[in-house]
Amino acid sequence: MNSKFIVIEGLEGAGKTSAMKTIVEMLQQHGIQNLIFTREPGGTPLAEKLRGLIKQGVEGEPLTDKAEVLMLYAARVQLVENVIKPALARGTWVVGDRHDLSSQAYQGGGRGIDKNLMTSLRDTVLGDFRPDLTIYLDLPPQIGLLRARERGELDRIEKESMDFFDRTRSRYLEFAAQDKSIVTVDAAQPIEQVQADIYQVLEQWLKQQENG
Amino acid sequence: MNSKFIVIEGLEGAGKTSAMKTIVEMLQQHGIQNLIFTREPGGTPLAEKLRGLIKQGVEGEPLTDKAEVLMLYAARVQLVENVIKPALARGTWVVGDRHDLSSQAYQGGGRGIDKNLMTSLRDTVLGDFRPDLTIYLDLPPQIGLLRARERGELDRIEKESMDFFDRTRSRYLEFAAQDKSIVTVDAAQPIEQVQADIYQVLEQWLKQQENG
Repeated sequence: MNSKFIVIEGLEGAGKTSAMKTIVEMLQQHGIQNLIFTREPGGTPLAEKLRGLIKQGVEGEPLTDKAEVLMLYAARVQLVENVIKPALARGTWVVGDRHDLSSQAYQGGGRGIDKNLMTSLRDTVLGDFRPDLTIYLDLPPQIGLLRARERGELDRIEKESMDFFDRTRSRYLEFAAQDKSIVTVDAAQPIEQVQADIYQVLEQWLKQQENG
Repeated sequence: MNSKFIVIEGLEGAGKTSAMKTIVEMLQQHGIQNLIFTREPGGTPLAEKLRGLIKQGVEGEPLTDKAEVLMLYAARVQLVENVIKPALARGTWVVGDRHDLSSQAYQGGGRGIDKNLMTSLRDTVLGDFRPDLTIYLDLPPQIGLLRARERGELDRIEKESMDFFDRTRSRYLEFAAQDKSIVTVDAAQPIEQVQADIYQVLEQWLKQQENG
């Protein structure tokens, strides 16, 4: 089986970190040892610098929605070209904490940047490069933000309004409904059930890949 | 007369700094005291951070052409929204050292990024916002780079090949031929003559503005 790019997506507090662990255990059980993790925005020296600017902003200067999305794509193309594609080319699997779908959901849905503009930006910057599988952890933002707040201080994006996260979630669900490579898992369930669901999704997907 | 946005463009060593001084003297003679300068990329705290990343790159990581152009546009939209538009709105003139035409010429011409992609990126990010007047200082790159090298160490972009700068210059000339708001001045002439030409271009343009 060729190496693959698997992505975890979801709102803050959806349980992405636990899900990453579940996926890695599962892949190792299938004999896949050769894997790396990525996170977005970030994952290269330049992309991490951009992440800092996006997450914290710059003192006294409003960050425009357009600059935010352009910086996110700058970080993404650096990661894809310098890390993800070379890893896949040498047979290494890549497990990503967020990828392009986050921009479609947060900037397209949450911030309300035109949807066609967002997908044409994606196509322009990434061509036809896409994850092989995206597991979207779905939950109401009220629950996710409560969890995220318990973890500590909120960043610039986590401070957005509940409406913002409702729009973000709707856009996630919209994409998931149209794209077979995105599988939705109900992340409002108890964590053991969420893990069991991820396990099952991945087991079935790996079998499909192994068979052809 | 409403406040205007005047931009100086040209290759490295074309004499943009001297030209800026000439323009300011001229504007002051016409009773225009209220003016600010901008430079691109840069001109806001965030845009200056992006300028540093673009100019110097990041140790050990290749900067992709796409990330470069996305960061340039992120810096530009910050400058336009947070500095240039507010200045024009309060009656302040803006004199810019480079603007969008630099991206069209360097990234579109020099780096060979698709021309339609470059103009659609411009339209997406900036809408119909354009300089009122652009003075393009044209000269063969051989002369400009000789001057730039005499000034000291070269940055990442100034180290490009002569072919790169030839393509950049051609794209500048192409845009200048199609757009009446771009006036070309022969910057290979002695500096006194270049200044005299800029003076004349601006004098004539200001008269048109005052009359019309």
